[in-house]
Amino acid sequence: MSTILDRVAATIESRKPVNGGDPATSYVAKLFAKGDDAILKKVGEEATEFVMASKDARHGGDASKVLYECADLWFHSMVMLAQFGLTPQQVLDELARREGVSGIEEKASRKE
Amino acid sequence: MSTILDRVAATIESRKPVNGGDPATSYVAKLFAKGDDAILKKVGEEATEFVMASKDARHGGDASKVLYECADLWFHSMVMLAQFGLTPQQVLDELARREGVSGIEEKASRKE
Amino acid sequence: MSTILDRVAATIESRKPVNGGDPATSYVAKLFAKGDDAILKKVGEEATEFVMASKDARHGGDASKVLYECADLWFHSMVMLAQFGLTPQQVLDELARREGVSGIEEKASRKE
Amino acid sequence: MSTILDRVAATIESRKPVNGGDPATSYVAKLFAKGDDAILKKVGEEATEFVMASKDARHGGDASKVLYECADLWFHSMVMLAQFGLTPQQVLDELARREGVSGIEEKASRKE
Repeated sequence: MSTILDRVAATIESRKPVNGGDPATSYVAKLFAKGDDAILKKVGEEATEFVMASKDARHGGDASKVLYECADLWFHSMVMLAQFGLTPQQVLDELARREGVSGIEEKASRKE
Repeated sequence: MSTILDRVAATIESRKPVNGGDPATSYVAKLFAKGDDAILKKVGEEATEFVMASKDARHGGDASKVLYECADLWFHSMVMLAQFGLTPQQVLDELARREGVSGIEEKASRKE
Repeated sequence: MSTILDRVAATIESRKPVNGGDPATSYVAKLFAKGDDAILKKVGEEATEFVMASKDARHGGDASKVLYECADLWFHSMVMLAQFGLTPQQVLDELARREGVSGIEEKASRKE
Repeated sequence: MSTILDRVAATIESRKPVNGGDPATSYVAKLFAKGDDAILKKVGEEATEFVMASKDARHGGDASKVLYECADLWFHSMVMLAQFGLTPQQVLDELARREGVSGIEEKASRKE
């Protein structure tokens, strides 16, 4: 059974130059061709857009824009994960570990 | 069947003041008590930490740090989604929609 | 006597559409034409690039890249200030106020 | 003649542990003691706060908050510059160079 995140990760993986991704036709292949800095710039940019969309939604704007920017943010972080051979499943495993071991509140003890 | 993201979202939801979340004992309840700006500041901070961990991993550091920061980034973006009654499933639906309708490459046509 | 920041601010001001700035030939005029979100996206992106350049410099890279990205970051924040009719001199005044009134350490009492 | 930025840079410099800065009493000395990541996290956070303040100001909030966050952003980037022995004057020199050589529009030819 393949989840949505698995499928997105598989698509991203298929866009790597080594897997035949073509920067001329694929946005993700182009990001891979440009490398880490181009991908991380997008992560920073999408985080900023998520913040702006949240502010706009709070001031009466469209909340679906927040969803949209969140998808962009998660997507570009997955492109960076792929640069290291990491998968969204491992992110979920880390989230599950925090829930399982000590509850989400682990974070409270960990930070501040 | 409840996925990991659903469970995390349910835990986050339970930490809302209106659901009995206690800022004195819960990190997430404290974030909710502080409001949007505190949550969005964390999103910006975690995005920065994701970038730093990626840079460190590329320069010989531990790639598991990248996973860890990615989990932090997704987690805090989910806290903000909860502020608007939005769920991670809706983010996945948006990602699936992009895959389904026109492939991940929709983004290529959309941007630049 | 005009300082560098004043001159940069004057150039930025001259690029506003209302002052004859032409998006077809001027990068700043194009930013103004696109509006707040385009400018703020650049601020988020340049902050990310500053972080990346700092990481690279620490790992043996070129420190002058840090200067360059800092100039980009300050520059784009000044474009945003101009959107509100604010000037870099007012930023300097705020920095001076903090030094003068209670020293740079005011911040220590203010935060955390 | 010492400018405001020079004075702020001198204060920051004096807070370095090697110059007797005390993390117990000085916010900046504490940042220096924590190192690069703590400083860069603040740069990312302050950039996010600048974005949020700008959004709020646009939606009817107080524009002076934008100035305040801009001062925070420039200040923390100066702390990072100090980590590399760089000065705000060098940032100004870079901005002046861009104005002088080819005008602010150099950026247009450089990017995009």
